[in-house]
Amino acid sequence: MSNSIEKLIVKGHIVYTQQPDSFTIHENSYLVVENGRISDILKDIDPLEEAQVEDYGDRLIIPGFVDLHLHGAQFLQCGMGMNKKLLDWLNDYTFSLERKFQDRSFAQEAYTLFAEELVAGGTLRACVFASSSAAGTDELFQALKRVGIGAYVGKVEMDCNAPDFIIESPEQCREGTLYLIDKYKDERLVKPIITPRFAPTCSRELMAILGDIAIQYSLPVQSHLNESLEEIEWVGELFPEAASYSALYDRYNLFGTTPTVMAHCIHMTEGELELASKRGVFMAHCPDSNINVRSGIMPVKHYLDQGFNLGLSTDIAGGHKLGMNEAVARTVQLSKLKSLDGVSKPLSITEAFFLATKGGGKFFGKTGSFEKDYFFDALVLDDPPMIAENYSVADRLEKFLYTGDDRNICARYVEGKKLSAVNVSR
Amino acid sequence: MSNSIEKLIVKGHIVYTQQPDSFTIHENSYLVVENGRISDILKDIDPLEEAQVEDYGDRLIIPGFVDLHLHGAQFLQCGMGMNKKLLDWLNDYTFSLERKFQDRSFAQEAYTLFAEELVAGGTLRACVFASSSAAGTDELFQALKRVGIGAYVGKVEMDCNAPDFIIESPEQCREGTLYLIDKYKDERLVKPIITPRFAPTCSRELMAILGDIAIQYSLPVQSHLNESLEEIEWVGELFPEAASYSALYDRYNLFGTTPTVMAHCIHMTEGELELASKRGVFMAHCPDSNINVRSGIMPVKHYLDQGFNLGLSTDIAGGHKLGMNEAVARTVQLSKLKSLDGVSKPLSITEAFFLATKGGGKFFGKTGSFEKDYFFDALVLDDPPMIAENYSVADRLEKFLYTGDDRNICARYVEGKKLSAVNVSR
Repeated sequence: MSNSIEKLIVKGHIVYTQQPDSFTIHENSYLVVENGRISDILKDIDPLEEAQVEDYGDRLIIPGFVDLHLHGAQFLQCGMGMNKKLLDWLNDYTFSLERKFQDRSFAQEAYTLFAEELVAGGTLRACVFASSSAAGTDELFQALKRVGIGAYVGKVEMDCNAPDFIIESPEQCREGTLYLIDKYKDERLVKPIITPRFAPTCSRELMAILGDIAIQYSLPVQSHLNESLEEIEWVGELFPEAASYSALYDRYNLFGTTPTVMAHCIHMTEGELELASKRGVFMAHCPDSNINVRSGIMPVKHYLDQGFNLGLSTDIAGGHKLGMNEAVARTVQLSKLKSLDGVSKPLSITEAFFLATKGGGKFFGKTGSFEKDYFFDALVLDDPPMIAENYSVADRLEKFLYTGDDRNICARYVEGKKLSAVNVSR
Repeated sequence: MSNSIEKLIVKGHIVYTQQPDSFTIHENSYLVVENGRISDILKDIDPLEEAQVEDYGDRLIIPGFVDLHLHGAQFLQCGMGMNKKLLDWLNDYTFSLERKFQDRSFAQEAYTLFAEELVAGGTLRACVFASSSAAGTDELFQALKRVGIGAYVGKVEMDCNAPDFIIESPEQCREGTLYLIDKYKDERLVKPIITPRFAPTCSRELMAILGDIAIQYSLPVQSHLNESLEEIEWVGELFPEAASYSALYDRYNLFGTTPTVMAHCIHMTEGELELASKRGVFMAHCPDSNINVRSGIMPVKHYLDQGFNLGLSTDIAGGHKLGMNEAVARTVQLSKLKSLDGVSKPLSITEAFFLATKGGGKFFGKTGSFEKDYFFDALVLDDPPMIAENYSVADRLEKFLYTGDDRNICARYVEGKKLSAVNVSR
């Protein structure tokens, strides 16, 4: 019957954040899901319903992680050449690797591995950069569809200031992008996103084309912004007409005209912050990448307290670890280091967890929390190695965030649907 | 026959560091081990010997990791209460947990888990703090003996400035310590080390007793030094007679009179560095702990360039990850952050790897390298998830260090003896 309700009830210790400053915890409770969305959390249920419950016993049930920025085509180079200077690293590793994704069979194999590792680590929503190849990007859509998570996938647009073998003409960019939009625009979970790599690799003509497509098809936008001082200076030289890096994107309708997420945002001027706030632009904090690329540390606590749209990300392969639980831990760590300046305050674990779930989840609609009407995107957790003691639920969650990995995730749900078992052997 | 030679030959890509600035790599080579020590590395061997070779094919073979400082009794609290202030953290988590190790059955269970996880992660030599309980510490010796790695194990000495339930009188400290020395002083791999927790929890009387025992039994010493400015100030108030924190230990023969390793050493005065150099004291860098406890960042690159005895450590549970490969990655990361001061230089991956192997290994004698006469303490590595391509051996090792875990270690050798298979399921 088309209007029957698909109902799911899971039981366990339910933990999530409604706001950054505290966990909401329902111990030994029943979470009721109807048509993929949360309808209630109950302490007791009708004994007749008990039989249908997926009972996870003493385990924790938390919202799935949302990774607001990573490069699927760079997964294979994770942890390589980490001491290279950024330009050498791009030339010696990244660009030559991204070139390989022009070959569909390579792309299929590499993206399948990437997608399986991504879902294994508990990321259930992600904003992913592919490569400049439309055919390769097509394979990333397929790989993410197969594992069953939600994602925005972007063909990486670039028509200048990168090697000839991975750039395209503005017209080729348009064609490839429209091909993917046509193929995937009506998908429920894995959808297209307009993805200028960053301003320096995009001509004015290309940015104009991309902004037009975003508006025409009501598509979101993702790019990089204000990662390093050298980059900002370069943008200023290339585009002297723009008042700022953000204003440049904005001039081409790539800064919040449609929903937009910008990675890094480390060195934002007050004017740019005002514009980001006005346009509701999401900023993606990339903690490991902040360190690895020596870009500086995003003032996350300050942005959070100011109420910006804000989420976390691994930034594979500027970052090297795919598991978002580690991004949560590293976010707290980085905020502690930043706090040694005597001005900033460290983030709490609840704040960092909020960013990795509800904060970034907002970009995908109602996901990242277990409040009523949110999609049931969830992870069920086994404890990392420990001895059974009376540890609090909050302590157990923090331990998972700091020390856990894919082996500690025993079930994954997206919009109420349980994903197939994930192979976590190596 | 008592003087026959036990011979072992392993084949693979052999990688180690002789000095900090570069890897020594022998691809597809035979490493010959006689009576537990390396006798040669060969490109070819006699066909008659071929049959006995343990052939690891395309895998990497590297020296085992050396963890110069961690707390076995704190393993269970890893990743919990990480935003607490240090004193609250000690009171709410550490001291009450350490108290439980007075119960032998608890100690046996907890230390068995710890030892198995430690060896799983590839640590084959370690300087370990237990708790103040001699009975509990006895169980740590036993657990480490069972897994077959090399270690110095210390009963944690404290007679003041900590809760009554975990301190002892100086006489009780002496008795418990002598009991363990008597029981383990002739062991080959797991041996006692004199372990004042740190100066503030030790009376002058206790430190005098400990220094005397170290000399009498020719035992090494481990403690904490100059971790935070508050701690240094406290030491100055408690012991106004000492010229410095290091000089205080030295006054009681606890600073290099016998081989000594000091954890942290973040805020060392020039005078202390001179004394450390003169006495050959080892300094243990604890990268994750530096961040988690907000102590500051050790100037590792400077110390390394100055030729100090220096190694790496996880500092469980100030640090939260047991795998030393992550300590290597975090060391590079922290040095990059420190280098944002415009003065310091980042560490290379070879320098950080050197510290985690040969640097710390020196404290145990000839271990941590594959040079002639070094003990064959080794790990055999499977690649983290990737697609077979022509990656260099150095790139593959860096990838393991940044992204790998216990699942990527497929064999472990200590002094030429292969350890039993390790259970890495969670």
